[in-house]
Amino acid sequence: MGKVYLVGAGPGAPDLLTLRAARILERADIVFHDALVDPEVLALASRARIVPVGKRCSQISTDQRFINRCLVEAAARYQTVVRLKGGDPMVFGRAQEELDALAEQGIACEVVPGVTAAFAAAAELKISLTRRGVSRSVVLATPRIGANQPAGEWADSVAAADTAVLYMGVGEARPLADALKHAGLPGSHPVAVVQSASLPGARTLYTTLEDLPRLATELPPGGPTLLVLGEVLREALSGDQSSEQIPAELPAPRANHA
Amino acid sequence: MGKVYLVGAGPGAPDLLTLRAARILERADIVFHDALVDPEVLALASRARIVPVGKRCSQISTDQRFINRCLVEAAARYQTVVRLKGGDPMVFGRAQEELDALAEQGIACEVVPGVTAAFAAAAELKISLTRRGVSRSVVLATPRIGANQPAGEWADSVAAADTAVLYMGVGEARPLADALKHAGLPGSHPVAVVQSASLPGARTLYTTLEDLPRLATELPPGGPTLLVLGEVLREALSGDQSSEQIPAELPAPRANHA
Repeated sequence: MGKVYLVGAGPGAPDLLTLRAARILERADIVFHDALVDPEVLALASRARIVPVGKRCSQISTDQRFINRCLVEAAARYQTVVRLKGGDPMVFGRAQEELDALAEQGIACEVVPGVTAAFAAAAELKISLTRRGVSRSVVLATPRIGANQPAGEWADSVAAADTAVLYMGVGEARPLADALKHAGLPGSHPVAVVQSASLPGARTLYTTLEDLPRLATELPPGGPTLLVLGEVLREALSGDQSSEQIPAELPAPRANHA
Repeated sequence: MGKVYLVGAGPGAPDLLTLRAARILERADIVFHDALVDPEVLALASRARIVPVGKRCSQISTDQRFINRCLVEAAARYQTVVRLKGGDPMVFGRAQEELDALAEQGIACEVVPGVTAAFAAAAELKISLTRRGVSRSVVLATPRIGANQPAGEWADSVAAADTAVLYMGVGEARPLADALKHAGLPGSHPVAVVQSASLPGARTLYTTLEDLPRLATELPPGGPTLLVLGEVLREALSGDQSSEQIPAELPAPRANHA
């Protein structure tokens, strides 16, 4: 019986893969991968059968139970089975369902950590998520927004941390900003929008919680978008606004192409 | 004038370095590195002068201003200057001081993200830090404990998130547990202690917030130790305790050697 590797593919750029992940891919027999994994990363798995099982927002996605079954069946047929996930497998990667399914069948499994999108966003911004005297906690969260959703604990966890990185939510910026203000964050709270972190065409914009909903509607379409919130951004936000010289009645975001 | 790369060395295992970090090290002229970077990683920088500037708890460390000055001076003399930091540079890496010092001198700088210790800990535990219906937020924090320290916001940020990873604090487990209980976490809250994540001799132990102080005093000396807290650990904690069959009046931790 084979072994299944849950492997983090990193934030997007193919060279932000780890050496260990690259070596496992090179000897993989079969690779099940998410939608956002770069073709250059998949090309490392030159011996392997490549099976896309990606999920991506509203697009057609593969049922999680089907993926679990694929992994179990592959482990019976192949020596080295790779489940390749964007970022790190253990953060917003639905890894637990797969780990449990494999454990239930007694299949050997190893997790290979990866670089999560939040750190690629910080690298893009060139702003440390922690900072002496300003931030000693960073929360990574996904908002829960919808007609039937309570304002919720996710907003409290964001408000309680010094710095926050939201892995989704820019598409629902109005209820998101409302929930965060309800949780105690001021309208002047600094926000950075980071699109396609680590990828060509990466873009960073600074704004405030108050202005985020308007900025979000003007955002050009792009790759995965993260929101960074916190006082660590204050200086960059001031610099960005002053350099814009936009009249006060018409503030507009600036795109910093990386 | 040269360029300075702030590079994440990952959580410890040399093959958890990224491909990009490896390539930059290979062409580096000089490398300033933290104390916990593996010699095998430094060996990649075969052309470079290697300068340890590490900090490690109570041991002798290099003053941050001195490190800043070293980087600025090196950029004037060398083409490729690498500042190699454990984990990811933007989380608990004091990167901002260095970025600011370089920006002040107009020195080009690039940040290369890395795998942070929290994800290596999750990989060691084989427990996802997020989980559908259980956890949609993960806070990474360093506790602030001491006679003159207020109970503090760090504890509130830990209590507000579904899952928390503390990058320090096992050495002061009693005041740490007290602060977290004061912030609202129950004594039964599941805790995992992860030593030397991703390194040989990695060790994981499950306990509760209530029992953490006693366990901490019995902990054998080891590498860097992280604390993971949250309901995502509940099942593993129950399994761990039941498999122990230790009488209720004498619970003891189990070491899982990875």
